[in-house]
Amino acid sequence: MAPRELAVLLLLLAAHASAGVTSPYRRSLLTLPDMPLDADVFRAPPGYNAPEQVHITQGDLTGRAMTVSWVTTERPGSNMVRYGLAADCLNFAAQGTVRRYTWGGVYRSPYIHHATLNGLHHGTVYHYAVGHGYTVRSFSFKTPPKPGPDVPIKFGIIGDLGQTFHSNDTLTHYEAGGGGDAVLFIGDLSYADNHPGHDNRRWDSWARFVERNVAYQPWIWSTGNHEIDYAPEIGETVPFKPFTNRYLTPHRASNSTEPFWYSVKMASAHVIMLSSFSSYGKYTPQWTWLQDELARVDRTTTPWLIVCVHSPWYNTNDYHYMEGETMRVQFEPWIVDAKVDLVLAGHVHSYERSHRVSNVLYDIDNGKATPVFNKSAPVYVTIGDGGNTEGLAASFRSPQPDYSAFREASFGHATLDIKNRTHAYYEWHRNQDGVKVVADKAWFTNRYYLPTDTN
Amino acid sequence: MAPRELAVLLLLLAAHASAGVTSPYRRSLLTLPDMPLDADVFRAPPGYNAPEQVHITQGDLTGRAMTVSWVTTERPGSNMVRYGLAADCLNFAAQGTVRRYTWGGVYRSPYIHHATLNGLHHGTVYHYAVGHGYTVRSFSFKTPPKPGPDVPIKFGIIGDLGQTFHSNDTLTHYEAGGGGDAVLFIGDLSYADNHPGHDNRRWDSWARFVERNVAYQPWIWSTGNHEIDYAPEIGETVPFKPFTNRYLTPHRASNSTEPFWYSVKMASAHVIMLSSFSSYGKYTPQWTWLQDELARVDRTTTPWLIVCVHSPWYNTNDYHYMEGETMRVQFEPWIVDAKVDLVLAGHVHSYERSHRVSNVLYDIDNGKATPVFNKSAPVYVTIGDGGNTEGLAASFRSPQPDYSAFREASFGHATLDIKNRTHAYYEWHRNQDGVKVVADKAWFTNRYYLPTDTN
Repeated sequence: MAPRELAVLLLLLAAHASAGVTSPYRRSLLTLPDMPLDADVFRAPPGYNAPEQVHITQGDLTGRAMTVSWVTTERPGSNMVRYGLAADCLNFAAQGTVRRYTWGGVYRSPYIHHATLNGLHHGTVYHYAVGHGYTVRSFSFKTPPKPGPDVPIKFGIIGDLGQTFHSNDTLTHYEAGGGGDAVLFIGDLSYADNHPGHDNRRWDSWARFVERNVAYQPWIWSTGNHEIDYAPEIGETVPFKPFTNRYLTPHRASNSTEPFWYSVKMASAHVIMLSSFSSYGKYTPQWTWLQDELARVDRTTTPWLIVCVHSPWYNTNDYHYMEGETMRVQFEPWIVDAKVDLVLAGHVHSYERSHRVSNVLYDIDNGKATPVFNKSAPVYVTIGDGGNTEGLAASFRSPQPDYSAFREASFGHATLDIKNRTHAYYEWHRNQDGVKVVADKAWFTNRYYLPTDTN
Repeated sequence: MAPRELAVLLLLLAAHASAGVTSPYRRSLLTLPDMPLDADVFRAPPGYNAPEQVHITQGDLTGRAMTVSWVTTERPGSNMVRYGLAADCLNFAAQGTVRRYTWGGVYRSPYIHHATLNGLHHGTVYHYAVGHGYTVRSFSFKTPPKPGPDVPIKFGIIGDLGQTFHSNDTLTHYEAGGGGDAVLFIGDLSYADNHPGHDNRRWDSWARFVERNVAYQPWIWSTGNHEIDYAPEIGETVPFKPFTNRYLTPHRASNSTEPFWYSVKMASAHVIMLSSFSSYGKYTPQWTWLQDELARVDRTTTPWLIVCVHSPWYNTNDYHYMEGETMRVQFEPWIVDAKVDLVLAGHVHSYERSHRVSNVLYDIDNGKATPVFNKSAPVYVTIGDGGNTEGLAASFRSPQPDYSAFREASFGHATLDIKNRTHAYYEWHRNQDGVKVVADKAWFTNRYYLPTDTN
């Protein structure tokens, strides 16, 4: 190649690379400790044995069931959820279960209740109450609409939330911006494991903190590394013990045998939750399930195919760089073949959105190991910026790789507003702005119905 | 580059590539079914409630304990192992446990006994007997010598054994060739899961088949995909259920919390068993354990560092090509940093030995994703050619990649004869040859004591 040609090529490459935006936004990089245990947001409700830490999640595949969970501290109390179509007419009842667990020989959990309300109607407001016998507390939720190709739904997207004042900002911004119909939670809930001995009181305080939202709309859970709670030094050798005791997922409804990987259908979306911290090698249960599940996806009913996984497969931050590489190597070919619309990840305490790229041609000998633009590939979003106590990941790799469309080290949350089978509007909000300010946005076109659109 | 220079470079590359040998050996590619359940090698011993399926494995970190396992079919019988320094003087006793498990609602296991003999002397022959009360059966073993840098030991290396006539040939050849002090078993034991409903009687028959060797020398177990036995269609959702009931590993002695990853020290070798089919992502228990374990390795006591894992990281066979890639991506940098001498894998039903290569420079953007020669890297051996019913993997990638030193599609086994801190002699035997014929061989020089030697 002649020097002049080379120069032109380099200029073209430079111009191309400039398509990616590294946001110059200046903010405090202040890392905050968790809010003190006596903070207002952690306050237990008044009344003897009052139910607290109330949270709901979808209880079946399509949203005709809702699982209600809560905690009582003084005694088991009632396992009953009363519910109905009006606050003054809770004429149905669902019986649940109660359990406790111990931790590290020093902590014993309160009484943890789970009850699933079945046979609900889609797209319907239900009122419900827990705590019968002593102190009753009442809430309500709306079931998701019946799955269908043009049924709109708006998701909140939150990851790595924790329980600092930043965390509270994130949740407040999500609520103040109008919220959504459900939250896709991308793992790392309480960060209890950052406290000595994985202080499990921080699981309790976190659940009290987020109750104001998750008691009213389902949060769909995926697990992060802060749910592993593997602590052999204090005798705790079963991964995910606090999480699995406190949070249920409707995994059986999608033929999964573990709560860490499963799917739900909501309106026009088929959402797949994967587990970065379970086995995913060929032949393992998660691998087997995902292979089968992708074959079950029906884009004519649920055109939007979304995958949530904690550790990102495309991340240009120095923090946790390439940690998701091993799972990407295992699953990316399937994700591209399935024309997944969007892969949501957390883990990195920063925000990033990719172009549609794939890196699936490598065969060890061919040297083809670079991400390339691919219309069939999903957009990758990293949204691990919920505000936890570990602080921001502010060091990005330079120059910004081609596959990175936008990146910024700020705390925040995102929303995905699915309009119909072809279009969805996506926004990311940073916590420092007023609720109406949009820091990043994109229209996503559906990979099944508009597969050649290059948005 | 001028055309002449290019031609020279291509010639050099071609000459280099020719260093790899694809053996032209011609053999029957006959795939055999498992031997019938009434075959001689599966015969149960005579006598009421006679102990059968006797097998031993190391019971602690260094070989001063041995775990003896056996099965009784009529009734639980005694859990006792009597042992001593002479066959007629079994003046010690170890009390064990008994258990049963069910499978698929149709199979109930016999009574499975496990007892660990503690406080043994290194390098000493012990006689032992099981089945007290009804039919006594007697065996013996020699404990491994005390760990030390120049202490010799000879390992048999067998993978993917199964229970065909080929499997019997493999074991017979290992025995007839003089055997070794212990067997490193590289996963995939019985292939019971290839039978309808994972017919667990095939776990029993396999254990009767190999008793003739494993009752007399410890086999150190790693697990393969045929140990997963994940069968939700018949209600079996806990991976590794038959294996974990039937086979113990001394995992606690090396601070592991699961039986699938652990290590043992024997003579001058530190052997690490990894699990291809458990989680290995960052932060998971296996990842945590391996990181800690590599820091515990003391090459001045055990110069030879050997890793066993079922799914190979370097494999040029079309069969299972790149299946180990995801685990390689996760762990290879550690293995190279630790200057591991040898990585043994199975899974591919063929034989292959690599040059010392690594592929750890890739950072997504730099294009460095090709295996390169590296003196600090281990030799990779694929030894999944035990002879199971799935047949040979006879289709190799062409041309033979640079990193492949020797490959051949024949059933067989290998031995590793560690001489001292610097040298070990390795041989691979194919089943079609007489026991004295060596089909592949190599002198390995130790990566800690002779790190710059390019053997």
